[in-house]
Amino acid sequence: MQPRILDIRQGVLDKNDRLAHELRQRFAAAGVLAVNLVSSPGTGKTALLEETLRHLVAGGWRAAALVGDLATANDARRLARSGAPVRQIETGTLCHLEADLVSRHLGGWDLAELDFLFVENVGNLVCPADYDLGESLRVVLLAVTEGEDKPLKYPPLFSSADVAVITKVDMAAAAGFDRAATLTNLAAVRPGIAVFETSARTGQGLAEWVDFLVERRQVLTADLGRG
Amino acid sequence: MQPRILDIRQGVLDKNDRLAHELRQRFAAAGVLAVNLVSSPGTGKTALLEETLRHLVAGGWRAAALVGDLATANDARRLARSGAPVRQIETGTLCHLEADLVSRHLGGWDLAELDFLFVENVGNLVCPADYDLGESLRVVLLAVTEGEDKPLKYPPLFSSADVAVITKVDMAAAAGFDRAATLTNLAAVRPGIAVFETSARTGQGLAEWVDFLVERRQVLTADLGRG
Repeated sequence: MQPRILDIRQGVLDKNDRLAHELRQRFAAAGVLAVNLVSSPGTGKTALLEETLRHLVAGGWRAAALVGDLATANDARRLARSGAPVRQIETGTLCHLEADLVSRHLGGWDLAELDFLFVENVGNLVCPADYDLGESLRVVLLAVTEGEDKPLKYPPLFSSADVAVITKVDMAAAAGFDRAATLTNLAAVRPGIAVFETSARTGQGLAEWVDFLVERRQVLTADLGRG
Repeated sequence: MQPRILDIRQGVLDKNDRLAHELRQRFAAAGVLAVNLVSSPGTGKTALLEETLRHLVAGGWRAAALVGDLATANDARRLARSGAPVRQIETGTLCHLEADLVSRHLGGWDLAELDFLFVENVGNLVCPADYDLGESLRVVLLAVTEGEDKPLKYPPLFSSADVAVITKVDMAAAAGFDRAATLTNLAAVRPGIAVFETSARTGQGLAEWVDFLVERRQVLTADLGRG
């Protein structure tokens, strides 16, 4: 890219970072654990989120979701079945969500009435990497059907994630999934990353994943109490 | 995006289109069918390409490949096993290939010595849509494990494709693949698109796919003969 384009891109990122910082403060002050879900298209973000919302709502937690896609409100309709409030963000041709889009779609929601906010990013292993959405946790999903080399091929996104969730583990044998290589590659790009192994279809690993989210929210609100 | 950013983006696209036009003329003059493969990460572009190169080389055709990834030369190493010349293009943080990158990586190859050039784009269902690489055929891949709604969610890329290849059909039952909905959604976004259903693992559908490529090259060179 030429210098002038780089300058403008840096300006966009700086503006996004300022907005994300404000959002992060708002979420923390309201005791909301914000989670940014990123992955390839088709990895199963919506399926994981649907089950996560169902578990949390059943446990008496108050959770909401924003869902980004270039087009269609299919995912918002799917997720609304969980009983949680859900809004679709249609991005047109934009390959990622930005803090400004998140902020604008929060309108009318009282954050004090929420415990968890999930943001399902546009399906993309490249573009979302640079855009902080004010989340407490950035979670990258990787399906057993995708191949174990994805962390090495898409290092910016994987190295920016706090947690990795391996999805569709019920299909691991059919896909010839190399679990050891996947864990090695994740650790190479993001040493010490927490990894969950899940199947939205069979329910495997979901209880551990939801427990982890609840624990992380408790840490957030404990910090708030001390602050 | 702001007007100034849009202006600069349009300038980048205009420059790319000019370069792509030149490449398309060079490929046609040399009788090279150039194929741009696009899909999500993990859909199986490399696996399809490996089998395609193997079939073509076995049939006496001369084929080469350029492979785009943010990082690693894993795919070039895999593809080189076919015996075809292969070059890796590492894009750093760029989420798509551009005509300029393709042009620069052709250096040293005599196009007159080739029948087919495959360009495996960066795994991404958004960014590659706007970047013409001078290809004769843009081929979008969709795995049975990804969900049938992808054409509706990523219309710019699917509507820009000439051909769709459904991959991993050996896993269709395990994935609960809805074939009818997928074909309906592809036709909704890109009416009349040619669809191939393949498995690089079992070989299903590969002969039809390779025959189609050979036919398309014959059309290209017949046009050349008349020109």
